[in-house]
Amino acid sequence: MMEYVNPGETLEDLNRNGLTIIQKKKGFRFGVDAVLLSDFAKVRKKDRVLDLCTGTGIIPLLLSAKTESPAITGLEIQHEFVDMARRSVLMNKLENRVVILEGDLCDEALLKSLPKVDVVTVNPPYKKAASGIINEEDALTLARHEVALTLEDVIRAARICLKDNGRLYLIHRPERLADLLTLMRQYRMEPKSLRMVYPHAKKAPSMVLVEGQRDGGAFLKVLPPLFVYDEDGSYSDEIRRIYGDDRR
Amino acid sequence: MMEYVNPGETLEDLNRNGLTIIQKKKGFRFGVDAVLLSDFAKVRKKDRVLDLCTGTGIIPLLLSAKTESPAITGLEIQHEFVDMARRSVLMNKLENRVVILEGDLCDEALLKSLPKVDVVTVNPPYKKAASGIINEEDALTLARHEVALTLEDVIRAARICLKDNGRLYLIHRPERLADLLTLMRQYRMEPKSLRMVYPHAKKAPSMVLVEGQRDGGAFLKVLPPLFVYDEDGSYSDEIRRIYGDDRR
Repeated sequence: MMEYVNPGETLEDLNRNGLTIIQKKKGFRFGVDAVLLSDFAKVRKKDRVLDLCTGTGIIPLLLSAKTESPAITGLEIQHEFVDMARRSVLMNKLENRVVILEGDLCDEALLKSLPKVDVVTVNPPYKKAASGIINEEDALTLARHEVALTLEDVIRAARICLKDNGRLYLIHRPERLADLLTLMRQYRMEPKSLRMVYPHAKKAPSMVLVEGQRDGGAFLKVLPPLFVYDEDGSYSDEIRRIYGDDRR
Repeated sequence: MMEYVNPGETLEDLNRNGLTIIQKKKGFRFGVDAVLLSDFAKVRKKDRVLDLCTGTGIIPLLLSAKTESPAITGLEIQHEFVDMARRSVLMNKLENRVVILEGDLCDEALLKSLPKVDVVTVNPPYKKAASGIINEEDALTLARHEVALTLEDVIRAARICLKDNGRLYLIHRPERLADLLTLMRQYRMEPKSLRMVYPHAKKAPSMVLVEGQRDGGAFLKVLPPLFVYDEDGSYSDEIRRIYGDDRR
């Protein structure tokens, strides 16, 4: 395996089908948000999937283990991440099911050239453009902030890439919920289900999972709360199920 | 007190400052939603308040006890409820602080004739017009369904009645969240805080509390979850605090 790993990189075990992922020792590493999103997305046996802002390819890798999708594509703008993600695909012998594309999701011609998919997943950069402090490391900055793209770009891209009635699965910060639902309505990506993720039962939510459907009818189902931790500070049963291990 | 109560009516103790409310024995009775909304609304010492769809006046009565507002107005379209609410105001000797108006919140001329307020509260009818079964009792139907007015009418009315930067507090069904946030944006009643109300920690939410601000800046704070029941089926500590009693 180590022939796939460059200096300054490290392997992380995903606790799924023996999968491992290549990440930087310093820099952007996948978080609980990617893991939650890969569990939230409903992907059926023959569904084709496109993961936008795929980064190191964490969501395509997890979906390859959790679903039977025959075709999972990850799109990423930063060459360094594309290279890492492609090596992770090869290392895990997933080249028949997972493809990593280098490109910009604001490039409509590129998006329109892709085959339409049943499912789009996206864990977009979280901070609003021009809000908060921009991190000094550029790659990390791009991965965490709306620098290269806005939330509107993400929703527009999902609409372009999806088949009629195709589903979008997205995770974002709760403070962007009004922006998110408004943009989804504007682009006729109807919000169909929503789940708040709370650190624990007495805390404000840290994330929100949203499912949208291209030209879907208006009915939103809000799901039970998802707690990351139990009151005693250990991971909740659901988080342990999602991670597929017994971490405490 | 019984001189205020007509045949077919009953008194309910509100567990606040000795307040009681007149309700029908059969027909619409106030629910936990009104109680939660009266707790969620932040009303400062000199704030003037308007409660839309006030029904039997439950929210003005509760706010008279929970806040120091000198002027609380309830607006109600159904004469029967107006009459009951007015008798409750007199019975509780609140006529110096609470006024019940009979009128339609779709009547813009009426709304514009009222003094602007700092706070609007509203626990509007829940069902979407033309969805679900219309109840046979007309009064109950009007109170529970969007028959006389739509959610858009409610948001528009709030905007008309509020001062600049005035706050709207509203409780609704979670399945209307996308409609609600979209309409609030459309009428520049910016969503500022939101709280999901779950029956208990493993259930989907049954209600959502939302605060909006007239021409407010865009930043939504999603609050910790509110649970009605503990896991053992007894009321949660927070619900008991809100109800101001020791009900189990």
